[in-house]
Amino acid sequence: MQDWFYEMQTDFSRFGVRVTALLHKEKTPYQEIKIYDTVEYGRMLVLDDVIQLTELDEFVYHEMLAHVALHLHHNPSKVLVIGGGDGGTVREVSKHAAVKEVILAEIDERVVQVALDYLPFCSIALKNNPKLKLRIGDGLEAVRRASEEFDVIIVDSSDPVGPGEKLFTYDFYASVYKALKPGGMVAVQGESPWLHRPLVKRMNADIAAIFDEAAVFWGNIPTYPSGVMFFPLGCKGELPKKLLHPVLPGLKYYSAEVHKAAFVIPQYLLPDEM
Amino acid sequence: MQDWFYEMQTDFSRFGVRVTALLHKEKTPYQEIKIYDTVEYGRMLVLDDVIQLTELDEFVYHEMLAHVALHLHHNPSKVLVIGGGDGGTVREVSKHAAVKEVILAEIDERVVQVALDYLPFCSIALKNNPKLKLRIGDGLEAVRRASEEFDVIIVDSSDPVGPGEKLFTYDFYASVYKALKPGGMVAVQGESPWLHRPLVKRMNADIAAIFDEAAVFWGNIPTYPSGVMFFPLGCKGELPKKLLHPVLPGLKYYSAEVHKAAFVIPQYLLPDEM
Repeated sequence: MQDWFYEMQTDFSRFGVRVTALLHKEKTPYQEIKIYDTVEYGRMLVLDDVIQLTELDEFVYHEMLAHVALHLHHNPSKVLVIGGGDGGTVREVSKHAAVKEVILAEIDERVVQVALDYLPFCSIALKNNPKLKLRIGDGLEAVRRASEEFDVIIVDSSDPVGPGEKLFTYDFYASVYKALKPGGMVAVQGESPWLHRPLVKRMNADIAAIFDEAAVFWGNIPTYPSGVMFFPLGCKGELPKKLLHPVLPGLKYYSAEVHKAAFVIPQYLLPDEM
Repeated sequence: MQDWFYEMQTDFSRFGVRVTALLHKEKTPYQEIKIYDTVEYGRMLVLDDVIQLTELDEFVYHEMLAHVALHLHHNPSKVLVIGGGDGGTVREVSKHAAVKEVILAEIDERVVQVALDYLPFCSIALKNNPKLKLRIGDGLEAVRRASEEFDVIIVDSSDPVGPGEKLFTYDFYASVYKALKPGGMVAVQGESPWLHRPLVKRMNADIAAIFDEAAVFWGNIPTYPSGVMFFPLGCKGELPKKLLHPVLPGLKYYSAEVHKAAFVIPQYLLPDEM
């Protein structure tokens, strides 16, 4: 097999990746899961025909989604990850000594199993990880039940179609606020400021309305539409202005300098200007 | 016509854009020029089946290529632009009051004419521009003939196949060095750090070897492969550490904060680490 996988990035843009093998394909109650081997991007996870991660660049997404908030929080002891059944975000979160407990709320247990079978570079964090509590179930319900329980919540969702849809609502962010301890923070997968403008504008407005302080940072992920992704950040209390921990060693994208630069959004892409 | 244009970003990645009309197509002695209308990206210039610019995001490329060097140079009076017959870089360069003369060395006069006909948002700078001297001819020859003549040289080349190929050589950069006045600077279209690693590594090593000080910055351009482009910067003398001019008003991407952040390259993408 030497073929092409095409993602519809929007109705008018496509991204094609040369694949060498379809290693796995199944339809779960929530979505279609596919695992490909590719020539250029290594192993690739696709949900409902949307690229979720590739072996080449997943580290950017997972490092930025996890480490910006975790380096800003004074004591991120208990962390909830919603979505992210592949394990990449749990892998990064678990690196922090301050983190004692990571709860992973993944709605589709098959994503976890497929990651264990095919994506070891992410799912390594799902095996023999004493900090991890895996909770198969609805992330929205997990935050609705909670009150001042978590230090950091990370929303590692897929796109706002299918199971991820309700993770992009005002009500969900309001539940996240309630579920955070005072001083708590949320970091969110925030889509592309170029191609998903109305959604990005609404997400950032909702988070700014609900949280005491909010901001947005970005990162360069080649296999996501437009090559960049926004990450809205909300704080229950005052958002610290500087890193409260030394940067973890051994990271490939995140650093103290990258942290600072990631909050510099060009005028044209600022949510307020959209 | 409601069709797709596909660019081969590499042998193993494709980018597809939905086009509504092929407005122009011609084969020149140097390359094939095409102009499309697209649904999502506005008007689009394609040379030898590679996207050169789209109406949506060309401002990022042209602002970054021009303004980083021009805001760092104490008196950028005489500027040479190599390539860039569309006029986008000349448009940005001409905004600086300190710039008295912009020489545009474009090898293919048909690119200039097609831009005048179809890309007014760029080619506006090619009409009634008292600062502009248009020189149809080989940019490499233009710098070989010159000695300490220019304050800033901007290499606005296409990819290193076809007419752009010799603009990616050690000899060319050495000629650029000679053509610059003391304190002069060059800014270069530097391809993607993700997908063109050997080329990017070599370009940056060559420029670092030839120039007294060198650096690299980047920008987010959605329609270029991987969504980001590197811009190597070389200085004949000491590279100023901060902006020497107030930032021009009315820009959409470039700002003092973006300038600083653009030099923060994540560890994994640093040329030295490649």
